[in-house]
Amino acid sequence: MQPDEDEANAAPFGAATTRVYRVIGDQIPAESEADTLAIEEPLEIRIGFGPEGERQRVRLSVTMRTPGGPGDESDFELAAGFLWTEGILTAPDQIETIRHLGFPSLEGGYQNVVCAELVPGATVELPNLERHVYTSSSCGVCGKTSLEAVRTSSRFTLTEGAGWQPDLIHRAPVVLREAQAVFERTGGLHAAALFDTSGNLLVLREDVGRHNAVDKLIGSQVIAGALPLTDRLLLVSGRASFELVQKAMMAGVPVLAAVGAPSSLAVQLARDCRVTLLGFVRGGRFNIYTMAERVRPA
Amino acid sequence: MQPDEDEANAAPFGAATTRVYRVIGDQIPAESEADTLAIEEPLEIRIGFGPEGERQRVRLSVTMRTPGGPGDESDFELAAGFLWTEGILTAPDQIETIRHLGFPSLEGGYQNVVCAELVPGATVELPNLERHVYTSSSCGVCGKTSLEAVRTSSRFTLTEGAGWQPDLIHRAPVVLREAQAVFERTGGLHAAALFDTSGNLLVLREDVGRHNAVDKLIGSQVIAGALPLTDRLLLVSGRASFELVQKAMMAGVPVLAAVGAPSSLAVQLARDCRVTLLGFVRGGRFNIYTMAERVRPA
Repeated sequence: MQPDEDEANAAPFGAATTRVYRVIGDQIPAESEADTLAIEEPLEIRIGFGPEGERQRVRLSVTMRTPGGPGDESDFELAAGFLWTEGILTAPDQIETIRHLGFPSLEGGYQNVVCAELVPGATVELPNLERHVYTSSSCGVCGKTSLEAVRTSSRFTLTEGAGWQPDLIHRAPVVLREAQAVFERTGGLHAAALFDTSGNLLVLREDVGRHNAVDKLIGSQVIAGALPLTDRLLLVSGRASFELVQKAMMAGVPVLAAVGAPSSLAVQLARDCRVTLLGFVRGGRFNIYTMAERVRPA
Repeated sequence: MQPDEDEANAAPFGAATTRVYRVIGDQIPAESEADTLAIEEPLEIRIGFGPEGERQRVRLSVTMRTPGGPGDESDFELAAGFLWTEGILTAPDQIETIRHLGFPSLEGGYQNVVCAELVPGATVELPNLERHVYTSSSCGVCGKTSLEAVRTSSRFTLTEGAGWQPDLIHRAPVVLREAQAVFERTGGLHAAALFDTSGNLLVLREDVGRHNAVDKLIGSQVIAGALPLTDRLLLVSGRASFELVQKAMMAGVPVLAAVGAPSSLAVQLARDCRVTLLGFVRGGRFNIYTMAERVRPA
């Protein structure tokens, strides 16, 4: 994390600290407080296989994960579990060693590339990979900073825009729940909802995947020719990941509100892209993580 | 959905019906009840671009999404939103038309391939795609059934194994919460925990991504040479998707318990692979979706 580096160093494994404004009712505090965030960082997984001399090394996957601290095995476990559960290994004892490659990232000192070296005779199921190729906005450029790779693709500049009253923000999740036809019956759908500055619900989309709910919502606005989504608030029913902040930014949405917690990389990207990021929006309270100046009384 | 086809047809868009045993305290009912599930199905997104005669069509992504019903635009919106938020389109008005390709899948009558045809002069940012290539266990073979593609990679056969007492299942999420060091501080981490038949917590792993928490946990067992995970229960803090059932199956775990809801494809895969799938495991209650015979009194 760039800001609060000293504080971040004091946080436990998997957590970073940040500053938040805790809004309760219509009270917007003048001072921010320290808070903790789950760390989200990219991990690239590679495998090395084949006999000495003809050894191949293949990049398999980039996933957004929570890294462990120094000496922690969690990246190696993640790689081993991924290789096994994806059916790439054909026997559980094929891994000779797993290690980090390259230098720690500039941003948090995390080692974001891992390579599993297989025993010389190991046969791998690479044809299976095609089945697994999947796209996601989850960055993936582990050599440089993940944020750099994203920022280039932004097509809109967010201006300060309208002010958002706390009242309207408190009401948004209530309106969302009332409008969700399916949610109450299955308990299994994420929702994304778009509001205007008067608190009107403009669009609601649902999906088993939170990124899909947001893509459906933004796609409806692409089709309607309504981009950029200036003076709109995007509410998501779950947590706010890096991926969702990126999608909000790409659509020109100035305010992203999540019913759940944001990740470290979500906050970092929101700060850099000037998106107002709100978390834990429920029960008449919310936290402001970035660009607090957009939240103000009438 | 294969089972209960008539009932599924009666469910609202985005929802399918199934049968569940609702366990309350130590009461395992003799009869199952109807319940609804959020539908999860693969969607392959392609684009067509370039001038007439030299037109290229590229497969970009497979995502697990909730399909809409007949006449619903949600797949087109999802494709449009994906193309825009991933930075593949360079202007919002580049889409000429979006349509479904091919035949509905055998399993639910869903059309699982969509193609966005761009206007002839549209320039696309295909180089960006490399950044987005991401792997996931989320099936991806949209031509045939998704389940077929998965089943071939299973390396263990699940036997009936030990019985699991309701008491022990009720206690698992309580034990998990107590053991989560980070969760309480950030509110942003998914957890996966492995229990034995006496209810002992053997391994706990956390991550911002639910699939990563499960990969870390299973990876720790791959490294320890402990596969298959016979007579183990895997508890996940969130919802149970197709992907998590697949990971449980690949590790030979007979019982997957989720604090949240399962998806339609999670239930279907669990049934076919003979995994016992439990959902909404909290507050002294849970639902049994598949292989109920593994849950029984002492």
